[in-house]
Amino acid sequence: MNHADVKAEYDSFKKLGLKLDMSRGKPAPEQLDLSNALLGDLGGFKAADGTDTRNYGGAVGLAEARTLFASLLDVPAAQVVVDSSASLSLMHDVIVYGMLHGMPGHAPWVAQQPISFLCPVPGYDRHFSICESLGIKMINVPMNARGPDMDLVEKLVAADASIKGMWCVPKYSNPSGAVYSDETVRRLSAMTTAAPDFRLLWDDAYRFHHLGEEKIAVPNILDACEQAGHPDRAIVFASTSKITFAGSGMAALAASPANFHWWQRHVSVRSIGPDKVNQLRHVHFLKDKAHVEALMEAHRQLLKPKFDAVLAQFAEHLRNVKGVNWTHPKGGYFIDLVTPHGAAKRTVALAREAGITLTPAGAAFPYGNDPDDSHIRIAPSFPSLTEITQAAKGISISLKLAISS
Amino acid sequence: MNHADVKAEYDSFKKLGLKLDMSRGKPAPEQLDLSNALLGDLGGFKAADGTDTRNYGGAVGLAEARTLFASLLDVPAAQVVVDSSASLSLMHDVIVYGMLHGMPGHAPWVAQQPISFLCPVPGYDRHFSICESLGIKMINVPMNARGPDMDLVEKLVAADASIKGMWCVPKYSNPSGAVYSDETVRRLSAMTTAAPDFRLLWDDAYRFHHLGEEKIAVPNILDACEQAGHPDRAIVFASTSKITFAGSGMAALAASPANFHWWQRHVSVRSIGPDKVNQLRHVHFLKDKAHVEALMEAHRQLLKPKFDAVLAQFAEHLRNVKGVNWTHPKGGYFIDLVTPHGAAKRTVALAREAGITLTPAGAAFPYGNDPDDSHIRIAPSFPSLTEITQAAKGISISLKLAISS
Repeated sequence: MNHADVKAEYDSFKKLGLKLDMSRGKPAPEQLDLSNALLGDLGGFKAADGTDTRNYGGAVGLAEARTLFASLLDVPAAQVVVDSSASLSLMHDVIVYGMLHGMPGHAPWVAQQPISFLCPVPGYDRHFSICESLGIKMINVPMNARGPDMDLVEKLVAADASIKGMWCVPKYSNPSGAVYSDETVRRLSAMTTAAPDFRLLWDDAYRFHHLGEEKIAVPNILDACEQAGHPDRAIVFASTSKITFAGSGMAALAASPANFHWWQRHVSVRSIGPDKVNQLRHVHFLKDKAHVEALMEAHRQLLKPKFDAVLAQFAEHLRNVKGVNWTHPKGGYFIDLVTPHGAAKRTVALAREAGITLTPAGAAFPYGNDPDDSHIRIAPSFPSLTEITQAAKGISISLKLAISS
Repeated sequence: MNHADVKAEYDSFKKLGLKLDMSRGKPAPEQLDLSNALLGDLGGFKAADGTDTRNYGGAVGLAEARTLFASLLDVPAAQVVVDSSASLSLMHDVIVYGMLHGMPGHAPWVAQQPISFLCPVPGYDRHFSICESLGIKMINVPMNARGPDMDLVEKLVAADASIKGMWCVPKYSNPSGAVYSDETVRRLSAMTTAAPDFRLLWDDAYRFHHLGEEKIAVPNILDACEQAGHPDRAIVFASTSKITFAGSGMAALAASPANFHWWQRHVSVRSIGPDKVNQLRHVHFLKDKAHVEALMEAHRQLLKPKFDAVLAQFAEHLRNVKGVNWTHPKGGYFIDLVTPHGAAKRTVALAREAGITLTPAGAAFPYGNDPDDSHIRIAPSFPSLTEITQAAKGISISLKLAISS
């Protein structure tokens, strides 16, 4: 690669004066438009059981909202909590309750310091921020195409009782798009952990967020854990943030009866009940699993061309560049662009100079530290198709410039 | 009082077969109807600054929602957070952040155990549940008509560095209706505390909830604390739960810049942002302070006759009963019925047998323990006027029977 040529290409791209923010996996306005009926008339405030959703109560959510999530997550409604508009908040609070109250039948984590979590990497920066903020030590575990390196996971959790939890994005993982295999799920549910109060934080964020025709299924983790004799091991999280409105939808938690009642006890101290009006509004709009799937197909139609455009640009500009590769996700919101070692930060900086804001390099690793400085998270959802095409070209040129010298 | 006569009166009342729940301060359906426009068409999703409320972001709330609360609470918008649909959750989380992270510039409370809070009694049971759940020791302080016993408060906080906080419902206090005097506010802001990380949890739940013509004002606690040289001492909480929909409205927190940024830092780990669609919906509906006050006048018209009915029944049936008295609140949601010592539990049990569910006796005290067993919280808001009149009569008869022998 000729440095002068790449530099000229970069300078000419820079002159376009782009101003694009691709730092987060935000839905595009056209995706949000799909749910604009939520802005309209609710058509009544009485729930099916007569509950006046405008008044206090219902710490674990509206009955029909719990039933809807039960059907979406394939779990009994009695084990589902619908609360908050962000599953991240539910995950945060599960860990906070673990710190201050302890998991059911166990001492508070603050009384068992130090505490550690396994973090498959690259992973979701906001998961890692929760651990960092609470002083929970994070241990990196490599992510492969079929999930985390299970040999390493099994070895670590068997040996170290300070490991109280593990972050899991089982399907279309953020940012690599990896999907946990049946074998990965089986081993996670069956493995021996030194900590009796170990939990899998199962963030099923992209359960319905397919990009291809294939609708990949991951085995039910609650069933797997129960069958393996560890019924309380997993806590499942989901939300409608990338189904209806981001941050104004419904979030849910599903867990064993023991974990469910533990959550109910602690959340009842925090709140008299969630926003049931918004839950009813969502149930009226989403109706049932078939309607959710139809809505997600409409999202797919909007997202797929953007992913294809990025992949096409990468193929065109980076195919023959040594040490560069990228994921081809079958769902989710991200592409993981892998650079030669030591080039990710420089690429992100060059892209920014050219008007393209990317997630900071390293963000997909605990403490923001990618030891190889080689992962860049690409979020194609928010910009328009034209913009994302330009941006993918600009990122490609920035990467080429970063590694030319 | 003739026991047989009272017993006969009670038996005849019981035969009415009432089924009334007066255990909580829930708004009545007619009050909720006042805000039914919130169920209708939002009329757009763009905030004044162009923010698409349907997408992620805005950890401290939508700009116009913060401006509205700033005007309602008489504080700068830059110091206001709008988040969650329940101020109780904001209070809970402030204490949780205090436990796990510490107040700005101070060690986490979990590292400073034991921790204590001052609890004016009778007070709000859900405040006390938060402390109990987190293992925070509660110290009773008697509430008078002008606020808590300040001589005792000053003595306690000056002597004991374990006292990290104090619950305050400054106006129309739950359950007595007491209003903090100017002098009480001045002394709370000026007093010397042994703990440098002491906080007033200022629950301004009933700021606009007048029952009489008089609109009582309590001095601005943030200003008072700043002027007294303790700018970070108070954190103010409020919500629209008893203005629009209970549990589906907006909640807010107002505090000094240091406390505001402390909250912002920690909440940004918990969530990408609150439900801005609901915030915009509320701002469209509530408009400004004048509209909120007009709405509260409509609430007052519905609530006043219910309070008057209870007071009239108590006057008729209990006026000449020795050792019995009750508060005449100028606002808020409760009347505190004070029985002779040792009679509250028995009265509540008799009322329940007659079909009237009251808040458990003792609930207004830490650990559910009213040392004199003499306070019953009456919540007139939810039942209809006919029902509340019957219920107040039934409670009066139950009390008379409880103390006759």
